[in-house]
Amino acid sequence: MSAKIRVTVWNEFRHEKKHAEVKAVYPDGIHNCIAEGLSSAPDISCRTATQDEPEHGLTEKVLAETDVLTWWGHLAHDEVSDEIVKRVQKRVLAGMGLICLHSAHFSKILRTMLGTNCSLKWREAGEKERLWNIEPGHPITAGIGEYFELPHTEMYGERFDIPTPDKVVFISWFEGGEVFRSGCCWERGHGRIFYFRPGHETFPIFRDENIRKVILNACRWAAPRVNMADNCPNVKPLEPIRSKA
Amino acid sequence: MSAKIRVTVWNEFRHEKKHAEVKAVYPDGIHNCIAEGLSSAPDISCRTATQDEPEHGLTEKVLAETDVLTWWGHLAHDEVSDEIVKRVQKRVLAGMGLICLHSAHFSKILRTMLGTNCSLKWREAGEKERLWNIEPGHPITAGIGEYFELPHTEMYGERFDIPTPDKVVFISWFEGGEVFRSGCCWERGHGRIFYFRPGHETFPIFRDENIRKVILNACRWAAPRVNMADNCPNVKPLEPIRSKA
Amino acid sequence: MSAKIRVTVWNEFRHEKKHAEVKAVYPDGIHNCIAEGLSSAPDISCRTATQDEPEHGLTEKVLAETDVLTWWGHLAHDEVSDEIVKRVQKRVLAGMGLICLHSAHFSKILRTMLGTNCSLKWREAGEKERLWNIEPGHPITAGIGEYFELPHTEMYGERFDIPTPDKVVFISWFEGGEVFRSGCCWERGHGRIFYFRPGHETFPIFRDENIRKVILNACRWAAPRVNMADNCPNVKPLEPIRSKA
Amino acid sequence: MSAKIRVTVWNEFRHEKKHAEVKAVYPDGIHNCIAEGLSSAPDISCRTATQDEPEHGLTEKVLAETDVLTWWGHLAHDEVSDEIVKRVQKRVLAGMGLICLHSAHFSKILRTMLGTNCSLKWREAGEKERLWNIEPGHPITAGIGEYFELPHTEMYGERFDIPTPDKVVFISWFEGGEVFRSGCCWERGHGRIFYFRPGHETFPIFRDENIRKVILNACRWAAPRVNMADNCPNVKPLEPIRSKA
Repeated sequence: MSAKIRVTVWNEFRHEKKHAEVKAVYPDGIHNCIAEGLSSAPDISCRTATQDEPEHGLTEKVLAETDVLTWWGHLAHDEVSDEIVKRVQKRVLAGMGLICLHSAHFSKILRTMLGTNCSLKWREAGEKERLWNIEPGHPITAGIGEYFELPHTEMYGERFDIPTPDKVVFISWFEGGEVFRSGCCWERGHGRIFYFRPGHETFPIFRDENIRKVILNACRWAAPRVNMADNCPNVKPLEPIRSKA
Repeated sequence: MSAKIRVTVWNEFRHEKKHAEVKAVYPDGIHNCIAEGLSSAPDISCRTATQDEPEHGLTEKVLAETDVLTWWGHLAHDEVSDEIVKRVQKRVLAGMGLICLHSAHFSKILRTMLGTNCSLKWREAGEKERLWNIEPGHPITAGIGEYFELPHTEMYGERFDIPTPDKVVFISWFEGGEVFRSGCCWERGHGRIFYFRPGHETFPIFRDENIRKVILNACRWAAPRVNMADNCPNVKPLEPIRSKA
Repeated sequence: MSAKIRVTVWNEFRHEKKHAEVKAVYPDGIHNCIAEGLSSAPDISCRTATQDEPEHGLTEKVLAETDVLTWWGHLAHDEVSDEIVKRVQKRVLAGMGLICLHSAHFSKILRTMLGTNCSLKWREAGEKERLWNIEPGHPITAGIGEYFELPHTEMYGERFDIPTPDKVVFISWFEGGEVFRSGCCWERGHGRIFYFRPGHETFPIFRDENIRKVILNACRWAAPRVNMADNCPNVKPLEPIRSKA
Repeated sequence: MSAKIRVTVWNEFRHEKKHAEVKAVYPDGIHNCIAEGLSSAPDISCRTATQDEPEHGLTEKVLAETDVLTWWGHLAHDEVSDEIVKRVQKRVLAGMGLICLHSAHFSKILRTMLGTNCSLKWREAGEKERLWNIEPGHPITAGIGEYFELPHTEMYGERFDIPTPDKVVFISWFEGGEVFRSGCCWERGHGRIFYFRPGHETFPIFRDENIRKVILNACRWAAPRVNMADNCPNVKPLEPIRSKA
């Protein structure tokens, strides 16, 4: 734990190279847009990593220097190596924060951390979403009012196949008639995990001021409290064993 | 869901072949001892499966006919195939119950379902254990009094690296000075999971009447309520979308 | 615990005497309508009680013979005696089920059991509500599909001031733009509590087939597993105390 | 929320006046001993209040200036006025932290906040207690190792009648054979609640360095994030209501 919270913003970074409409919205990639949103905070230092870098940009050294990892992926979840997923999982269990954004509900790392398939309903109709803040006292919702709106968004609807969250901080209302647990908190090992629903590749969600505020808040909330690896130790008794067979 | 709860008792079945002292305690294997304990219940039908059978005895057909799977493993967790683990996980998420016993805390299937490393402290000193029933209204503790004792047992101590359980039903006191959350309940997908601590290979734990009662209760508690696979459907709106970009 | 689940349907029963429009919808009172909905189930036996009866109809004898108590109140929460509330609380802690309906979010008994003020947003505009079933494997949602709708209803919106439920089984979507955790489960002492949002006095909600199914399911889910009063006992040691000062 | 966390240390303060042996251990009262333990922390400002002061020392003004309230009582729980209890509850729901110590498990305020009777087993035999830290990443256990011991203590044993805590941070092992969930966290409304088991009136528990560290950590953890009173507002729709009856 350094003076600043060291965030690594990870992005699949495929859409932006392939699809003109995505490139138009995120010319420098979704990762640089998210990093830009975090960069003005005095307590955050930010780097980025992308899937097509060696080791997906997540070497042992990078992870050792990461307090909070944010994750966006969509097209190529299956191409993320199992070995790197295990490496990230180990770091989360030792204390690193993990923030999974939008289509990262189907990422290997989130499914590995949660143990469920993270299935949901979805629709791309450019509809309105209203995110209700149901935990106004939670650090992740600091500075967010009773709700905020996204004018055009992809819909994700329940049932979302996740373990019951420790805390649900946002529930979404969609114009087309669905609801969704859009901000979900868990703890696994010594690390904290936040799933945040918004973030489609062709809507400028990651430029939205409320979205940026929530991601910044989440990085602060998920910053490590300890760095501690479990090792299943064999231990000596603390009291005399008298009843031995 | 059939009239009877169809339990498959799974066992690694290596110790019993290799180690004379284990064979002396469980001559027919731990699986047959557990199955024997369940066999007198009129609402249970029981089969067994072991690691060295083809597909570890867990073919698609066997799993499709299984309501609750109990799991004991110790020496050879790593030799369980990832493909079979995924197959079992899929069945649990669709509704099958899973009961992991003792050293199965380190099984691939439990770690996959929970997302944590399931580390704990341990000691083999043949000491006394007292399991306190902290949820006397829970179906898993039916017929168990305020506590029960095991005269000689392996010790497992906290910290146990698990997601906070939905319900802890037993907390153990050990003669040597440790405590442990010995009966833990979770739900994942549509399935229920129970971890139950006791069960060492050289103590006759699975012949103990209280242990047998708890395992039977757990099979009833974990019996499927539904059989439902999630498939992440694309859906049509239920209300008109007026705000489309 | 008898062969049948003994349900006592409690109603404030003031609106129906005072307001012609309520009397038109529920000529025999809300309680008799709810009881009618339960009466066809072979495993339920039903009685009613109302606020203006002696002891609000909830004598020690009635409560001793009650497995599950359903509660509807609105105008006169403050006139319910604190002594009767404590009596009901004691029974819930000993194992009785409690089902609070709609405006009973503000009842003394629910606020006493939960410890929060149970505040929410509300609006009477006769709008459409869609209840999403987010726990299709839960006994309370048995026989309910992915969602069901109420064509005209009072709106309750988040933030709902409740302790994080053990399980949220329904989340509502409202035409006017809000969301709500409409089906919430808790355990307190040895008893189970379910809060179910729908149920306004001038909409015929309690005649709706889905609503009736949910209330019946909830009665089955909340039926006592034990009847056990805690008494803070002074106890003798189970092991010798050697370190005494 | 001020620059410093404003803690009010509340004490029944009856034992210390009546019983010579208690006076010998806590000559200035338990409250002043606890306050002394907090006073060296640069981020804490501390005041005390006792039961026999007017309004139990908890006027509206005192509570408005309190971020975290710690509570110790034993002999005279019933003499605490219901009105003051409601006043404290209202402040907790609005965001104030509440820390209940030892015999305050039976205080009106804790039972009001939790809704259960908080029954437990108990014994005064001066036995050894070992508190296992099962959440080493939690702020309340910062600086505490894997466990700490109290050489002579009153025993509290399970079953403890409480709602399942959001987080259990300590589990106690007792020489006499019992276990106990000794550090329990909940959130109610916008406030945080911590129950901490140790603290008998004739053992010098509140002079113990580990105990003092935990209470200080708990004050920091329970410091308000917001100050927000719920008021059950009637609200206008955010979307047009078209389906009106």
